[in-house]
Order: sequence, then structure tokens, then C-alpha cells
Amino acid sequence: MEKIEHIGIAVKDLEASNKLFASLLGTSHYKIEEVASEGVKTSFFKTGPNKIELLEATNSDSPIAKFIQKKGEGIHHIAFLVKDIYAEISRLKSEGFVVLNESPKNGADNKLVVFLHPKTTNGVLIELCQEIQ
Amino acid sequence: MEKIEHIGIAVKDLEASNKLFASLLGTSHYKIEEVASEGVKTSFFKTGPNKIELLEATNSDSPIAKFIQKKGEGIHHIAFLVKDIYAEISRLKSEGFVVLNESPKNGADNKLVVFLHPKTTNGVLIELCQEIQ
Repeated sequence: MEKIEHIGIAVKDLEASNKLFASLLGTSHYKIEEVASEGVKTSFFKTGPNKIELLEATNSDSPIAKFIQKKGEGIHHIAFLVKDIYAEISRLKSEGFVVLNESPKNGADNKLVVFLHPKTTNGVLIELCQEIQ
Repeated sequence: MEKIEHIGIAVKDLEASNKLFASLLGTSHYKIEEVASEGVKTSFFKTGPNKIELLEATNSDSPIAKFIQKKGEGIHHIAFLVKDIYAEISRLKSEGFVVLNESPKNGADNKLVVFLHPKTTNGVLIELCQEIQ
């Protein structure tokens, strides 16, 4: 794990939350990206070496819609940057962690991503991500 | 905001979670610290420029005990490093954010800390922290 790449925050209204987080962080979001396969529209903020990713559901089947329905708005996941996502998946599975997708998939921000099941990580949804070269 | 200083994670059993996060992050915790005034015992892990702080309640009145009772184990707060916590408190209050403690207080890891009310931050408990010189 190289660093916390970003923290993902589930929001109901991306436009309103973009304004709120711009006030909070003292800087505006620098991009908006839709990931149709995940049913989300995202925006990104930089804070030093880390990012904040806001996630709004684009349909009612989106994991973000379900998360907000169950828990309300708030922190959805922590993403750690890794150098070799395949090696990390293999290492973590051997340590007893459960991956939610066996093969890395394309996520936002030009990344290969994999999620670990929160039941094996103290209730925290953890993403590993690697830059697509 | 300079960076994400740490993410605070509420856990039931610090010893068990220290082992779990050592496996996950590939590195052991580097210190344990009790903050009696907050009713917490904490452990810290480094991941590049960021830290993970695990928090176990030391009594049933602890905010961490109440958090776990209500929501279960999981992410408790995000802490951003700031250069001048007094200036940031003043700036954020003028932007409409609500601070939970009017004056910064001593937190773990040699920091002055202040928390923002989650009702003004999309359900996210946010800490600002500054190194005590």
C-alpha cells in the first residue's frame, strides 16, 4: 500500500456537495467523471497527495443508491494505491481477506480497482487501485 | 488542508484489529496511545504520507463506544492536517460549518484537534489537526 489514494463519499446531490466540499477543502473539484457500469457520477478534489471522490448514484440499482438508502450520506470507502494489484489480491486472499471482484475492473480516474469485503476488514469497505499505464 | 493526516476507524478489540490491519497494510502499528479524556485507546499505522488510527473505547461513555453501539465497527472520522488550526476554524465557521469544540483540544499523536459537526459535512465526521510545536 503506497498511500491513501482517495476517500469515497456517498452524496445525494453532487452539485450541492461539490459546493460544500469546495468550501471545506478551500479548492474546487478538478473533474467530473461518470462510470456507467457502476451507476455513479463522481467528482474529484485534491488535498495534497490525496484525493476526495464524491459519488452520486445515477440509477436506483447503483451501489451508492443502496448505500445511502441503508446508511445515509457519508464515507463509502477508502482506496489505497498499490503498485501491483494482481500481487496484492493474491497476497490478501492468502491472508484471509475476501475480494468482491476476483479480477480487477476499470474504475474512475483511469484506475484498475478491486474491493475487499467489509466483513473481513472491520466493517470498512476497502478499495485497492492501480493506475492504468 | 495539507493532506489527509489519518483516517480513524472504530474497532471493538484493538489487539485483534491490530493484527488484521497489519495483514492488510503489510506493516505493523508503530505506536499505541491512550487518550483518557476521550475514553479511547488508539494505535497508529503508516501508509506513505498518511496514517490509519484504530480507536477502541476504554469505557462505555466513550464516543467510540456510542458510535459502535449505533453503527457498528467502521470508519469513524477523516482528519485533515492544517497549518493554522485557529485560522481554519475561523474560516470554516464563516462558511457555515459547525465546530463541535470551539477551542482546539489535545488529541492523540501530539496534535491540537477540532471536529466539525457531520450535519454540515454530508454526514462525514471531519477532524482538523495541527502538530503541537
